[in-house]
Amino acid sequence: MARSRITPEREAELYAAVLDLLGEVGYDALTMDAVATRTKSSKATLYRQWGSKPELVVRALRSNKPVAFEEIDTGSLRGDFHAMVAATDDCQLEKDSALMRGLAQAIHGNPDLHQAMRELLIAPELTGLDAMLRRAVERGEVREGHPALPYVVHMTVGAFVARLLIEDVPPDRAFLSDYVDAVVLPALGL
Amino acid sequence: MARSRITPEREAELYAAVLDLLGEVGYDALTMDAVATRTKSSKATLYRQWGSKPELVVRALRSNKPVAFEEIDTGSLRGDFHAMVAATDDCQLEKDSALMRGLAQAIHGNPDLHQAMRELLIAPELTGLDAMLRRAVERGEVREGHPALPYVVHMTVGAFVARLLIEDVPPDRAFLSDYVDAVVLPALGL
Repeated sequence: MARSRITPEREAELYAAVLDLLGEVGYDALTMDAVATRTKSSKATLYRQWGSKPELVVRALRSNKPVAFEEIDTGSLRGDFHAMVAATDDCQLEKDSALMRGLAQAIHGNPDLHQAMRELLIAPELTGLDAMLRRAVERGEVREGHPALPYVVHMTVGAFVARLLIEDVPPDRAFLSDYVDAVVLPALGL
Repeated sequence: MARSRITPEREAELYAAVLDLLGEVGYDALTMDAVATRTKSSKATLYRQWGSKPELVVRALRSNKPVAFEEIDTGSLRGDFHAMVAATDDCQLEKDSALMRGLAQAIHGNPDLHQAMRELLIAPELTGLDAMLRRAVERGEVREGHPALPYVVHMTVGAFVARLLIEDVPPDRAFLSDYVDAVVLPALGL
């Protein structure tokens, strides 16, 4: 795979620069030229490694996630959810919220960005979440076919979006932790 | 109040024209001139009646809601939620989703629109929802201080947003009805 030609350190450096630029100028104004200048690399290298601007941006966002669902397996569903929350930090959540807010705006005019987000960011999350929930079913914590199982993602998205929309503050760990105990686990019968 | 100078029928006609225009050109390109032309009214009248473009747009959106929480009181919380869902129709939900999607984008660059939405659209909904939940507590259906009570709005917002974000389809009545039974009521202990 082309991506293996650069070191993980260099990759991390590039992703950090992309996220900085994204926060500074937004998706639409972010150019591959600017990324090349900022990271002292050639545009040809960027295109060879990432193919396109949406893919570069979305891979940078993905690298930024503190932890993926698939890395977590504490032995209980409650443990898994709280491990997810504990792996984030409030400062990071605030920065992420600002980035995602800008991107939510950008996807309207950029179907290729929307597509890249679905494939590289949302689909792996959904797969990881499904695996986490399947383990809970296999352990007997949640009943097979429980009606709330397909909606865990909706509950979770609501926590993030409604907090921003209504309270105008990004979610923080205390809020997410309380939401897991007050909403997600009880809806699943735990 | 200035608004009382026009008849309810004329007001409804104006709001319908504003929503049509909003769907056609989007918030940023919607001008008071275009509204005046479309509705055969004078710009002076529009400003006298509504004060500003954001207020006119948000009042039009509000008029468009099939039912307000405060009008519903079926005697049970489950009944109230399902009456809300039943009052909507799928075609309307699809149109609303498209409008709200466009507006979610527009509020980033228009703090006055965000402010008008908070005051005229979101705040009354929250008040109506709170009243509905308070009645459920008073009837003894939900325990006073139940930990999920402050999060009903987050669960609800999640149903709308995640459906669009992940499944790329607007919510429909069947989905919302199932979500109420599978998530919202169980989270509240019902």
